[in-house]
Amino acid sequence: MRLELSRVVQGCRLGVLTGLGKSGQHSLEVPGCLLYTRCATVPHLTQDTLHTLRDLPSVTQVSVDSFAEHHEVLEEFKEGVRKFAGLHDTVLFCSLHDSANTNPAGHVTNKTVSVWGSGGRIELTVARFMAIQAAIQPDCYQSMADGETWQAGVSRKRVRKAVDRTLAHLDECLVLHQKTQELKQAEIFGVVEGGDIMEERLRSARETAKRPVGGFVLDGFHSAAMDQDVRAQLVKATSAELPQEKPRLVLGVGRPDEVISCVEAGVDLFESFFPFQVTERGCALSFNYSIDPDPETAGTSTPTVLEINGEMPADKKLNSNGDENMMPFEMNLRDKRYQDDFCPLVEGCGCYCCKKHMRAYVHHLLVTNELLGSVLLMLHNMTHYLGFFKALREAIASDRLQDFKNRVLHCREGDLK
Amino acid sequence: MRLELSRVVQGCRLGVLTGLGKSGQHSLEVPGCLLYTRCATVPHLTQDTLHTLRDLPSVTQVSVDSFAEHHEVLEEFKEGVRKFAGLHDTVLFCSLHDSANTNPAGHVTNKTVSVWGSGGRIELTVARFMAIQAAIQPDCYQSMADGETWQAGVSRKRVRKAVDRTLAHLDECLVLHQKTQELKQAEIFGVVEGGDIMEERLRSARETAKRPVGGFVLDGFHSAAMDQDVRAQLVKATSAELPQEKPRLVLGVGRPDEVISCVEAGVDLFESFFPFQVTERGCALSFNYSIDPDPETAGTSTPTVLEINGEMPADKKLNSNGDENMMPFEMNLRDKRYQDDFCPLVEGCGCYCCKKHMRAYVHHLLVTNELLGSVLLMLHNMTHYLGFFKALREAIASDRLQDFKNRVLHCREGDLK
Repeated sequence: MRLELSRVVQGCRLGVLTGLGKSGQHSLEVPGCLLYTRCATVPHLTQDTLHTLRDLPSVTQVSVDSFAEHHEVLEEFKEGVRKFAGLHDTVLFCSLHDSANTNPAGHVTNKTVSVWGSGGRIELTVARFMAIQAAIQPDCYQSMADGETWQAGVSRKRVRKAVDRTLAHLDECLVLHQKTQELKQAEIFGVVEGGDIMEERLRSARETAKRPVGGFVLDGFHSAAMDQDVRAQLVKATSAELPQEKPRLVLGVGRPDEVISCVEAGVDLFESFFPFQVTERGCALSFNYSIDPDPETAGTSTPTVLEINGEMPADKKLNSNGDENMMPFEMNLRDKRYQDDFCPLVEGCGCYCCKKHMRAYVHHLLVTNELLGSVLLMLHNMTHYLGFFKALREAIASDRLQDFKNRVLHCREGDLK
Repeated sequence: MRLELSRVVQGCRLGVLTGLGKSGQHSLEVPGCLLYTRCATVPHLTQDTLHTLRDLPSVTQVSVDSFAEHHEVLEEFKEGVRKFAGLHDTVLFCSLHDSANTNPAGHVTNKTVSVWGSGGRIELTVARFMAIQAAIQPDCYQSMADGETWQAGVSRKRVRKAVDRTLAHLDECLVLHQKTQELKQAEIFGVVEGGDIMEERLRSARETAKRPVGGFVLDGFHSAAMDQDVRAQLVKATSAELPQEKPRLVLGVGRPDEVISCVEAGVDLFESFFPFQVTERGCALSFNYSIDPDPETAGTSTPTVLEINGEMPADKKLNSNGDENMMPFEMNLRDKRYQDDFCPLVEGCGCYCCKKHMRAYVHHLLVTNELLGSVLLMLHNMTHYLGFFKALREAIASDRLQDFKNRVLHCREGDLK
């Protein structure tokens, strides 16, 4: 695995991660995202439906909590999750938790962390964690980490302990990694902790960077954990301590504005749980990310939901003083206003849903609880989100990041006026 | 619409229903089934996933209860459910209720029947029923009917009233049908009621047959309603009163043994809610319907689950004295026995699931509540069920119905010993 940076502008790193996968034939453009899954399946989509999407990430994310309960079966199967789940040729990244879930706090000890499967809590020592990795057989995985440092008012002492434990876990993981035949070709990503304490973030980054890791996971920065400005400063300072040539993946950050802010602070990789969460609340991503000056191209290939409605959609206006989970990046298809709206979700969008269906039908499916509603939303939201990352890379490549930010953040700013 | 019978053997009618659809270009082989949907979508499947199935029925079933609440939207849309739901070119049949649901009894009056949408009960007069049909714009639809005659111990008087009301509704529907521009090319199926009282069944059949209907719906025969022998006798006598050249659709009958019994009694058409119900309980259809004497063909194109396991699967044995919803036609993939079973659901099955996945993975998806589990089961179950109907037609065509029955009913009989 090698990160080749082609351009670094205003802190943003543009490049390609190459040599991925068992035979090294895969690559992933950065800034970019992993393909979010649960149990190795993208929620709501079959593999064939999924592969109607263009520009799918070459790296699929699975998490330990999906497989911890049943890892004996995987052990017996012997050929890893990729084959077990019948995945297409893809690179597997394994993280500890599913970022779309919130887990109860208070279950970390000196020697263990906990994950939650369908049957409840499972306590993991490093030995068990590594046995699970050996059964999953990922190409890359994060080391075990104590990530419970993000709640408000956590003490400096607790944060220091989390950094120490996480480094100790990493060292133990590295020792077992060497001894594990199934992980011979895999790479470990070291986890940077440190809560919102700059000193601890820097220490965690420096110490982790000394170890033979393939990349870095920045933990404890998720949306609920901290203010966006604080995050940007911490991530920026942390990134500066990490070697340029290794990728940095931030966990739990998915909102477009937060993604842009993290990219400016030096992050390369993101998860893609965000379009799934949007789908689960019955919403469609509808923000505009086109900076194409050619109105013809813009009209056929890029979302123009704002223009079509002729005014700021009312649900965007409402959000500023409404439900804090409902971002202005999305439209709530459950809203009655869409029951007789015969337009596609986003005019000009090339996804299966927008090409074949109308807002009114998706609304109807959602209010009558038909599962196809979520399938269609998921197809659209993944398409839209992947399109956003592609446009972000193009904006960096063409020195137009500011135009891009103005476009993406426009509705937010308009919203806050 | 024309039913061309090519063969009638032991009561079984083999033929083709031709001239279906607006331009009359569709046909449907009988005995056969309609494509079951909710809100015009096959549960768990997108249109593209669905169309990976071979031999899909050319007739799609929708029901009034899916659209009754929102029919104003459809009215405004003006182009009917086919276009609203973005369906492929298909014939639409509209029934009153969704046979996969059980509706509360006690809500029928002289002039109204009730259906249940997501927001609760909706009372329909004939006028409203017909307004909804005008908005749905089906190619065929059943007339409004009082079907509440199937509970045990319903009085002769109540059954007679149901027959009278249903005939009165039919007459009213026919009058409005003539006046409705949107239904100009559609056909009405008259509904035969009569509970378990032979005299009323015959009267209902004779009177309905006098009306200008395109076909007949046999109501009140569903699995929970009556004993299989009683049903067979009633259906047989009823069929004899109906004109040969018009199709008969029975509602609520889906289990393979019951389907065969109804076909022998003169039924042409069935719904396909059964594979959906099997999917919802986490099961896979696995009964053998192959009567092919060529072992090589049998090995590659037909299910041989019994042979593979080398013995009667334990879940089939259990069912005879276990859960009455669990039939011996299916295997319960939630069962722990499948957690390390790396075979396909049914060896030799050509469906997407059996070609790509193992029982262990489907089990894992089901116990962790991942939606893909249902998607995969639904693909398999629909494939298996459509294959069963195809094999049934072939058995009638080749005079091998008895072999076919022995094969299909084998596990039941083995089970009951």
